Amino acid sequence: MSIEHPSFGRIDDDRVIIFDTTLRDGEQSPGFSMNLDEKLRMAKALEELGVDVIEAGFPVASPGDFESVQRIAETVKEAVVCGLARSGGKRDIEAAGEAIAPAKRRRIHNFISTSPLHMKYKLRMEPETVLDLIASGNQAARQFTDDVQWSAEDGSRTEPDFLCRCVEVAIKNGANTINIPDTVGFATPDELQAIFAMLRERVPGAENVVFSTHNHNDLGLAVANTAAALAGGARQIECTINGIGERAGNAALEEIVMAIRTRHDKLAFKNNIETPRLLSVSRMLANITSFDVQPNKAIVGRNAFAHESGIHQDGILKNAATYEIMTPESVGWTKTSLVLGKHSGRAAFRDKLKALGYDLDDVTVQQAFERFKILADQKKTVFDDDIRALVDDETRDHERIKFVSLELVSGSKHPAQATLELNVDSEVRQAQVTGNGPVDAAFRAIQEIFPHDATLALFSVAAVTEGTDAQARTTVRLEENGKLVDGQGADADTVVSAVRAYVHALNKLLVKRTRAEPEALSA
Amino acid sequence: MSIEHPSFGRIDDDRVIIFDTTLRDGEQSPGFSMNLDEKLRMAKALEELGVDVIEAGFPVASPGDFESVQRIAETVKEAVVCGLARSGGKRDIEAAGEAIAPAKRRRIHNFISTSPLHMKYKLRMEPETVLDLIASGNQAARQFTDDVQWSAEDGSRTEPDFLCRCVEVAIKNGANTINIPDTVGFATPDELQAIFAMLRERVPGAENVVFSTHNHNDLGLAVANTAAALAGGARQIECTINGIGERAGNAALEEIVMAIRTRHDKLAFKNNIETPRLLSVSRMLANITSFDVQPNKAIVGRNAFAHESGIHQDGILKNAATYEIMTPESVGWTKTSLVLGKHSGRAAFRDKLKALGYDLDDVTVQQAFERFKILADQKKTVFDDDIRALVDDETRDHERIKFVSLELVSGSKHPAQATLELNVDSEVRQAQVTGNGPVDAAFRAIQEIFPHDATLALFSVAAVTEGTDAQARTTVRLEENGKLVDGQGADADTVVSAVRAYVHALNKLLVKRTRAEPEALSA
Repeated sequence: MSIEHPSFGRIDDDRVIIFDTTLRDGEQSPGFSMNLDEKLRMAKALEELGVDVIEAGFPVASPGDFESVQRIAETVKEAVVCGLARSGGKRDIEAAGEAIAPAKRRRIHNFISTSPLHMKYKLRMEPETVLDLIASGNQAARQFTDDVQWSAEDGSRTEPDFLCRCVEVAIKNGANTINIPDTVGFATPDELQAIFAMLRERVPGAENVVFSTHNHNDLGLAVANTAAALAGGARQIECTINGIGERAGNAALEEIVMAIRTRHDKLAFKNNIETPRLLSVSRMLANITSFDVQPNKAIVGRNAFAHESGIHQDGILKNAATYEIMTPESVGWTKTSLVLGKHSGRAAFRDKLKALGYDLDDVTVQQAFERFKILADQKKTVFDDDIRALVDDETRDHERIKFVSLELVSGSKHPAQATLELNVDSEVRQAQVTGNGPVDAAFRAIQEIFPHDATLALFSVAAVTEGTDAQARTTVRLEENGKLVDGQGADADTVVSAVRAYVHALNKLLVKRTRAEPEALSA
Repeated sequence: MSIEHPSFGRIDDDRVIIFDTTLRDGEQSPGFSMNLDEKLRMAKALEELGVDVIEAGFPVASPGDFESVQRIAETVKEAVVCGLARSGGKRDIEAAGEAIAPAKRRRIHNFISTSPLHMKYKLRMEPETVLDLIASGNQAARQFTDDVQWSAEDGSRTEPDFLCRCVEVAIKNGANTINIPDTVGFATPDELQAIFAMLRERVPGAENVVFSTHNHNDLGLAVANTAAALAGGARQIECTINGIGERAGNAALEEIVMAIRTRHDKLAFKNNIETPRLLSVSRMLANITSFDVQPNKAIVGRNAFAHESGIHQDGILKNAATYEIMTPESVGWTKTSLVLGKHSGRAAFRDKLKALGYDLDDVTVQQAFERFKILADQKKTVFDDDIRALVDDETRDHERIKFVSLELVSGSKHPAQATLELNVDSEVRQAQVTGNGPVDAAFRAIQEIFPHDATLALFSVAAVTEGTDAQARTTVRLEENGKLVDGQGADADTVVSAVRAYVHALNKLLVKRTRAEPEALSA
């Protein structure tokens, strides 16, 4: 059994489409916003990882979202680039169609709520109106591309007969992928399996479309629900790297992919993911968003293969299979991440950058290389993560405010004093300020040099690598009128790192564009 | 249908026993070790949360483990206190029996591997020998208590007929709880359900014992597997707070409990968990181990109810049920965690400590109150987490090395210089050292004052609360001969906080006792 698909051609029944929504559902959750460059880097990494569809954003939401979807569409080579749109939004669908236009393969994903609760309270629409918008939305989407996906928002809580009608209307009006999201993370595996089995059995035309599952982890069931949906007949999985996303996040790509691979006896499905890239993509996202996964995160957490890390494990030494159901290497863990030293040349550095997933212009490579040489003089060993932190710090957008210098006197005896110099619009300004601790003093100095209304919502520091001479990687989250931006900084000096992160966030806030109401963003 | 249980009396068929192993399986994973005081605080918090059984440790593993199980047995009032032991270890069972003796209700949990792989490579035993040890182990355990649990390590990968024989032998020799762990996180929900259904159908005496499920999250299936085990007939759930534990961790208590509560239509089981305490117990563990859960962690992550946090959510405002399947209040989230200020008195402070789950002697309360007053002068608002950080810093064991003072000169222009004073064995010593950044300089100063061989394995800083005047909470992990210890520090000054954490870890290392081989610790 197989079907014909506008983007993929003939799809065998044992093939699962991997639809990554890290850049849409993931990116829209608080604290996980990314700028254009970061999105482009992630999109390239996702394509190299082997995902089939990249949901790149919600083009109508803001000019920034539109631009990033468009740029991703220009950049990605083989993967389908997908833009989100509301079924009832004419402008939504036009914006999505225009944004994905440059892509070789392109999809419009239109959605509308179908559950009684959402129709009544959120949409305030009658079911017949919803059916009309499903028809017009999918027709409109087909004007821009043959690859059209429709989602029944809150589908798992939708009345079965009505869900069948909605899916039938979507198919009749041009949708060839039908997604039934468990929007609120409420479903159990048996329920989801039954929903897909029902749709495949009852809906005319179901045999010609790909059914898709999209699960949230509010009750810790996202991966199991995804596997159950496959059993029910779904053949597209929506997921995110590190399981990021609204509230408790989405099904983690790395977990469901490794569940399929490890339990291929029960989940006999093919996909194109190159699993040894899982760890590096996970790390890239963690670096960009500055949220490390938990040590006990499956597949990509620091402890996931912890018996590998020097702690004697009798069973493991006798036979790794006693406690390991997959090899660490199969998901990208290696014995050592140690890489470059002070004697490494520019060619080696450039190769390393490529291996880490960076594709940078010569000027940026040169600037990063110069900072690398300084770091290599300071540190005995330079790890991959050091290089990531350094490059991430270098590849910033053009910024109004730049860090110049900082001097500090602090400790447990006297109030801390910071002397800070910033370059604001090409003019160096200075302030000398005392505070409650060195970070407070330095942040007050920023406020004095560049007065602003944003408040600090989060401040955290993590050493990117081990050792007393580690670079500190700092995140500063600023909030202004309900908008959140995260800035990152890296430096051997914690406080300098913190000031760089604050300045980064402040620069982001200065160019931050408004977004559409979040009500429209959930699926 | 109901059964008679030595600790719980008559147990109805819809009652699920919550068995928490945060202090055993959780505590033995890298970076999550706790000292005696921390374990006692967790044990009290777990009892208040309403868990039925607290697995307190593995008494034979080390004198420290023995002591902590014994002290927990003395402290806990109603919950069953459980000690782990190998079925084949006579000393294991004696140590467990002795350690749990002070408890009002007490259990010995003995285990042995039953899978072909584990028997051949790890145990190097014939199946008949394993059966003999199951018999002798459970008999020995019954000498110390009527409440005996037996576990088939790697049970989910055990040959079905042999598993039935093992369980039969365990029941005949005195076990009244039978645990079938999915030790390596390999099972799928349908497999686990079938295993429990098979055991209940085939094993003589199965109707008189409680079956227990213990699931690891290596493929993201721990919660779903736990729910499936209930469907198969299991009536005890082994789980941990925040899902900590070996590798990818165990089923998270908060997730499975809220899955049962939220989907009571499908999982119609009773338990005694007071769900509004879930968040505070999660936070307590995060503070003690210094590993925050991910923002997108289900139930207890910062984003789990993120639409609550000031970001406009159209749907939520119209009707919370559109995107919420449980209320934030039901798991302990409140609109504000703002609590005390500079005008708060000692009584209010003491009440707050009680509400936060601390039970401290008068001297410690007084010392903490004095530091609170200083902090309240420095900070506009004092949050619960500030108080937790402060008290955690105050309630330290008697330590050989104490922080006295630190002065720093640092910044981006010159090498950082630290002048540090430590009190070592009641004598104040000083060092003045330069380094690569202020943290490096300060840590070098510690090395100069108190030379040691341990190396820094991890260094991270997280602001405990929001605002520029936040206290920094720092974790330092030291490694010596493969042993890891974590130290914590809290201070408004990041570097002072880091030095406090380093000194804390160093003190722990000085009293760290050797443990039994990890091969014995997995179940």
